[in-house]
Amino acid sequence: MTDATTAAPPLVHEVLAAVLQVRQGSLRVLLWERAMEPHAHRWSLPGGRLRADEDVETSIRRQLAEKVDVRQVSHVEQLAVFSAPDRVPGPRAVATAFLCLVPSHMDPELPEDTAWQPVSTLPDTAFDHGAIVLRARNRLRAKLSYTNIGFALAPPVFTISALRSLYSAALGYRVSATNLQRVLSRRGLLEPTGGTARPGRAGGRPAAQFRFADSTMAVTDPFAVLKPPAQERGR
Amino acid sequence: MTDATTAAPPLVHEVLAAVLQVRQGSLRVLLWERAMEPHAHRWSLPGGRLRADEDVETSIRRQLAEKVDVRQVSHVEQLAVFSAPDRVPGPRAVATAFLCLVPSHMDPELPEDTAWQPVSTLPDTAFDHGAIVLRARNRLRAKLSYTNIGFALAPPVFTISALRSLYSAALGYRVSATNLQRVLSRRGLLEPTGGTARPGRAGGRPAAQFRFADSTMAVTDPFAVLKPPAQERGR
Repeated sequence: MTDATTAAPPLVHEVLAAVLQVRQGSLRVLLWERAMEPHAHRWSLPGGRLRADEDVETSIRRQLAEKVDVRQVSHVEQLAVFSAPDRVPGPRAVATAFLCLVPSHMDPELPEDTAWQPVSTLPDTAFDHGAIVLRARNRLRAKLSYTNIGFALAPPVFTISALRSLYSAALGYRVSATNLQRVLSRRGLLEPTGGTARPGRAGGRPAAQFRFADSTMAVTDPFAVLKPPAQERGR
Repeated sequence: MTDATTAAPPLVHEVLAAVLQVRQGSLRVLLWERAMEPHAHRWSLPGGRLRADEDVETSIRRQLAEKVDVRQVSHVEQLAVFSAPDRVPGPRAVATAFLCLVPSHMDPELPEDTAWQPVSTLPDTAFDHGAIVLRARNRLRAKLSYTNIGFALAPPVFTISALRSLYSAALGYRVSATNLQRVLSRRGLLEPTGGTARPGRAGGRPAAQFRFADSTMAVTDPFAVLKPPAQERGR
């Protein structure tokens, strides 16, 4: 038995990016409005066809660069393959979708056809792009609970109050600042910078500033008792 | 700007399964020995080309069925896309790889060319299949720490001692039975069946039997304090 007996017609492979950022208090996704058919005037994820000389990671970074300054993208990971036979009209295309994050203090210049759309009230989306956005949102929400991925949403330095707003926007419900600080500190994810933020117009005590201890994604709460003493933790 | 400006030659899409099981005290993967070139006599993952009328999940289940009774597969999830331009000789093929698990008490009939090979000492593997196996192993190890995925490796009913052996084999180091029971119980993953196992030849007290409370994968330790009271947790 070989693996070449089930011939199938060739197809195209495309890569798509769900680029998420917390902006103006809500979780948003970078979409562009299609000028031409198919699905003219609907909103699409950035991306396009995989070239002969690149892998999917190289391809998504190249294609993202047409929409946004990729140096401002803090995290890129494969999300899932979308492969329903009829997901796009015309020749069959299988898509590798990525989850990408931009920290909240970045404000990249965008092309005219492109905008940050709220994930909770998306405009009309093209093809299966709406489903891809929701999958990306769900992956982000899950990873906020068991990894340090918050580093990729936050600016380099922040108050607990600001971080609470970011987590609340991404998770879709109000998080307690006290609990957030306790959990992240206990896991060793946060460290104080020693500095304080200027008091707001309301005055009051200046708030302590923090940063994430690490900006490489890691699972942050594996069964501690199951870990060997000095072994690396992986995804 | 449209997403059709970067034309690329068509390619084939294949699906591959890294089917893992704990057998004879070690983590093993289902591989078949190639009879023909390319890479004759090297060991391959089950899989093959995506057909025109199926998505990748449908395809991997169909192709797995040629090697193993798929009713004995307890868990299937997308692992990653492997897309290096030169990953296979001949026409370009992009692969969607899956992580699949078979519980330890199953002993599926296998075709003659197929065997359970130890992940820690793989035979010569074809193409990038060795790298895919290691990625699958790493995903399993990570998920053992933050999900209930142990249900997919274990038989329906087991003693803590037996479960400890499974976790130890999958993780690659010796886990403490006491700690394992404490952590899994605290998270509500384990429940006693009320029954006991027959004592072994050494005699002694009969051991209590347990089962997993759930056999649908879930993240089992999100930041509890960040969760809304009654919201579903998902990946």
